[in-house]
Amino acid sequence: MSRVDQGAAAMAEIWRGGMLESTHLGHAVICDAQGVVWQAGNPDAVIFPRSSCKMIQALPLIETGAADAVGLTPAHLALSCASHQGAALHVGMAGRWIADLGLDESDLRCGAHEPYDRDERDRLIRGAEAPCQLHNNCSGKHSGFLTVTRHLKAGSEYVEIDHPLQKAIRAATEEVTGETVAGWGVDGCSAPNFAMSLTGLARAMASFATAREGQGRRASAMARLTQAMASHPELVAGEGRACTELMRAMGGKVAIKTGAEGVFVAILPEQGLGIALKTVDGNSRASEAAIAGLLVRAGVLDAAHPATQKRLNPVQKNWRGVETGEIRLAPGFL
Amino acid sequence: MSRVDQGAAAMAEIWRGGMLESTHLGHAVICDAQGVVWQAGNPDAVIFPRSSCKMIQALPLIETGAADAVGLTPAHLALSCASHQGAALHVGMAGRWIADLGLDESDLRCGAHEPYDRDERDRLIRGAEAPCQLHNNCSGKHSGFLTVTRHLKAGSEYVEIDHPLQKAIRAATEEVTGETVAGWGVDGCSAPNFAMSLTGLARAMASFATAREGQGRRASAMARLTQAMASHPELVAGEGRACTELMRAMGGKVAIKTGAEGVFVAILPEQGLGIALKTVDGNSRASEAAIAGLLVRAGVLDAAHPATQKRLNPVQKNWRGVETGEIRLAPGFL
Repeated sequence: MSRVDQGAAAMAEIWRGGMLESTHLGHAVICDAQGVVWQAGNPDAVIFPRSSCKMIQALPLIETGAADAVGLTPAHLALSCASHQGAALHVGMAGRWIADLGLDESDLRCGAHEPYDRDERDRLIRGAEAPCQLHNNCSGKHSGFLTVTRHLKAGSEYVEIDHPLQKAIRAATEEVTGETVAGWGVDGCSAPNFAMSLTGLARAMASFATAREGQGRRASAMARLTQAMASHPELVAGEGRACTELMRAMGGKVAIKTGAEGVFVAILPEQGLGIALKTVDGNSRASEAAIAGLLVRAGVLDAAHPATQKRLNPVQKNWRGVETGEIRLAPGFL
Repeated sequence: MSRVDQGAAAMAEIWRGGMLESTHLGHAVICDAQGVVWQAGNPDAVIFPRSSCKMIQALPLIETGAADAVGLTPAHLALSCASHQGAALHVGMAGRWIADLGLDESDLRCGAHEPYDRDERDRLIRGAEAPCQLHNNCSGKHSGFLTVTRHLKAGSEYVEIDHPLQKAIRAATEEVTGETVAGWGVDGCSAPNFAMSLTGLARAMASFATAREGQGRRASAMARLTQAMASHPELVAGEGRACTELMRAMGGKVAIKTGAEGVFVAILPEQGLGIALKTVDGNSRASEAAIAGLLVRAGVLDAAHPATQKRLNPVQKNWRGVETGEIRLAPGFL
């Protein structure tokens, strides 16, 4: 276990006018079922996975029987793993979900923020309507949390560290990462977020990648979540976002998920591989370039696809559409 | 002259739940009239100053006689050095300025983007009105550019690298930095941005800091611009922004200016000091913490002022107002 700024590798470069303007350091690990198969930077770096671990946080939703007890569909499971745009699609689905549970928006504990989706944002502003907790990018995860909480007949304060749901998430986290959690913090959505090594996170993603339905409770839950995410890219993030566009480009075969502070993970079921990476500075232009590069390297993403180029080596343009520079992976990163 | 990622120092740390989540590297230099008096990281790092050099780009506005020919006030000069919010205050002033020149918004070459100011943004959305070039954070600089262009009877494409205005800016840049420019790129507002060493930028800021009116054309222009910025903090950025709040906290005695990709500069006339810094990754939470720390260290900013604390060591809160962590200067940075 190391500090996040120890042993980092050059990950991405920002160029302007043919000159280097900024650079990003990071760590990246690829695991298969046996362990680390590739690394850049320091695989022992301790990180907060932030939203990249939502599929781990969703395991109790299936494993407690809560999801099936209320008949959740794969779309609900995808939304439970989402950092969504707060578009009408996401807000409407989360709202119907908790209404079907007999609950309402005030039962959520994620807080409200202006939606990233422009149409929904503008609709709110035109109507002088405040954003609600359903607009929070984590409202799908929290709808899942409420589903488990209700199923367990547990207390309403489901984001408390000693709540049965969070205890179940902590246990699942330690099982799938193969590590004792290194600590915890409060996430942007108020849920506990458990710290882990980057290798632990990649190992967890490899567990998801090698899990198959019918191989036991844990493996079935993992396989269902991976399939749900990969099959519903529009629910996991939203139009224009890296997760959505790259998953679409991979044709439903791979699940990927971003997290705040420059985290990105990928689950590659056909290859049995899990990927985890983080930029030391928390920047996402670099984490998006790096995950695109690693997915191309793994043979699951077409380097020539527009969604790939938009992240891997994007030309930077200014407000008048004039080319100003480009983002590149650092030489030697891959 | 070195790459921006060579020899950087630990600048700022992002903590969550008592654990380190992300870190930022950077370079910082303080110069007086004789040269470097303090440094962190690599003073020879080559950077793009971006918007931090707007007071250099405004020198021809005064030195050609253009500003006085049309009776520009200190407020106009402050706006010419601004990266403003696009609030009604800024948009209205820039619009009247170019109208008084007999020009209109279509003569600008900065491009349009949604204003950062919430009230003005919401007003546009409610009225289904598109943002115009006056909303661009650089519209004050470009109003100054148009003023010079008209005064010189030069061509309308004033952001071209071989336009007389840009040639004058390049010459002024080399004179005040004491360096041949290291290259150039196109900025977000389409103007050329000249690359320089961080020491060159700090040396230029020290020149501004030691300049006094009546000591010649260059020194008079510098002193007027510094005084204009320091006296009109609301015009240089806007409500809630670091430049505005920190300049207000310093009572009009110091001019500071941010630039994209984590640049920050300060001009301290009473001390005769110039400060320049840049984060390697381009992050601004770290550049804001660092400039606040250096201004406190220089004795011009009160460490206990709320505007200082908001940048120097801010507690991070989430959407429900729950404390999640803090930003700190890296140990040993100051």
